[in-house]
Amino acid sequence: MSFVAVISEVQTMTPSTLDKTKTMADKNRLSLNQITTERWSLQEAVDGCMRFGIPSVALWRNKIADVGLNESVRFVRDAGVHVSSICRGGMFVSPDSEARKQRIEENFRAIDDAAALNADSLVMVVGAHPAVTIDDGRQIVEDGIAAIVPYAKERGVRIGLEPLHPMFAADRSVINTIGQALAIADPYPPTDVGIILDVIHIWWDPQLYSLIDRAAPRIMGFHVSDWPAIVPDILKCRCMMGDGVIELRRIREAIDAAGYNGPIEVEILSEEVWNTHGDRVLERMIERFTSLV
Amino acid sequence: MSFVAVISEVQTMTPSTLDKTKTMADKNRLSLNQITTERWSLQEAVDGCMRFGIPSVALWRNKIADVGLNESVRFVRDAGVHVSSICRGGMFVSPDSEARKQRIEENFRAIDDAAALNADSLVMVVGAHPAVTIDDGRQIVEDGIAAIVPYAKERGVRIGLEPLHPMFAADRSVINTIGQALAIADPYPPTDVGIILDVIHIWWDPQLYSLIDRAAPRIMGFHVSDWPAIVPDILKCRCMMGDGVIELRRIREAIDAAGYNGPIEVEILSEEVWNTHGDRVLERMIERFTSLV
Repeated sequence: MSFVAVISEVQTMTPSTLDKTKTMADKNRLSLNQITTERWSLQEAVDGCMRFGIPSVALWRNKIADVGLNESVRFVRDAGVHVSSICRGGMFVSPDSEARKQRIEENFRAIDDAAALNADSLVMVVGAHPAVTIDDGRQIVEDGIAAIVPYAKERGVRIGLEPLHPMFAADRSVINTIGQALAIADPYPPTDVGIILDVIHIWWDPQLYSLIDRAAPRIMGFHVSDWPAIVPDILKCRCMMGDGVIELRRIREAIDAAGYNGPIEVEILSEEVWNTHGDRVLERMIERFTSLV
Repeated sequence: MSFVAVISEVQTMTPSTLDKTKTMADKNRLSLNQITTERWSLQEAVDGCMRFGIPSVALWRNKIADVGLNESVRFVRDAGVHVSSICRGGMFVSPDSEARKQRIEENFRAIDDAAALNADSLVMVVGAHPAVTIDDGRQIVEDGIAAIVPYAKERGVRIGLEPLHPMFAADRSVINTIGQALAIADPYPPTDVGIILDVIHIWWDPQLYSLIDRAAPRIMGFHVSDWPAIVPDILKCRCMMGDGVIELRRIREAIDAAGYNGPIEVEILSEEVWNTHGDRVLERMIERFTSLV
């Protein structure tokens, strides 16, 4: 069975068939978010997925730009690998109105990438700026989303809002909780604007499980990694699943129960992981994914 | 007018007299949380307050222990300085039931300190442990609060629950939002169990201002510092008011409007501040407090 066939089977499952999935190897839902193998090029990441039987990959736009969009499309198509998401659009927030217009244009290019690569969604890291108050930033983000949704819809690209951990509220994202992301998505159909759930950003939320239920129709992606007991660095705070404190299986089962049955990306920003050979990272990632997630 | 007289006037103000306060020097509400001058002993911090006309101080229990409780009481009484809070009780979470019992005992001692020093409240940093799931940790905290409230009430000590930033959810506090702290405080009268609002921990909350309104009857303390655009280190992430991104005056006015008119502590954990001579820190703190908070 090709990767594409596996994925198409996963994607057409209904909640009633989920119990069967649980007895299947979860690996069919595994996606390598390529920042986990940051030192690899796009082709190396796609090749790694083929070698290790990982059916999906999430691609970063800087890596796409390194080889060009057409080459990227060809690598992905030749490998028969599914693209779970493109990272990333967003970054709307700036004190400068010209800069804000340019960011919207850049989002159109990100949507083009996502369309060409037939990605499940374009992940939005919406931005933040120290010279813009958090409330003004949130308004700029709402305006930015409104400006790009029609363009995305025409091209069949789904916009995935990713709430980022509150520790990123000053420099990366003014969307910081699932509840807030749902409020921003509310004016749009769930097929156009959804939510990306990443355990690093949401695990601490006192209302996590009820918010997952509320998010059900809008869940477009699920990212796993782990939160270490000692955090070395805010940006690269993550560790391999099982090396931290997050109840990964419980959260995965809650997201399954909400009806999401698409790919599950492993996205680990970590110097330690980046300094490990990519093949070793993928071996461990598969082992931990199938035993812990 | 002695410090004590100033404070007693501040504390008896009603919301209707707040406009007058705004034209008064805010400095009457200033409190030095002594971790801001971490290199100073308790006596040096109290002396600093006297020299710079700062009417209140928040004391840490490790500094109290360095000189003993009786000496600490004497220093504070002789200086006529008001104690806005004792830092800290809490740290309830452990996987070991014996350890949990010891933590409760330790909280009784913290309550004794707060009673002897006539502090406005005992601040609770409730704890977290990597070997305890976050939900179990939250239950342990609720049980811990229940175990200490009667002892505190008998001694006239108010328990102040401080929600800590979600980035501390694995190692310092499983209470991470104002909403969650209010739910835990709910079974108790507001005079017994209240909330400590620290801008570092709450500034990102999408529901901040409505939560301040909801918290109104329970606000027992207000801590200021600032969140820098670049965060060097999770624990010592803070900077001097005005060097970061937080809308301090807007938050202070919202908390005033909610009816809180007690001391405002400056609490800055920062290597840069700690490496600056305490007198220079106090000068700058007063200048920034009166112009920005």
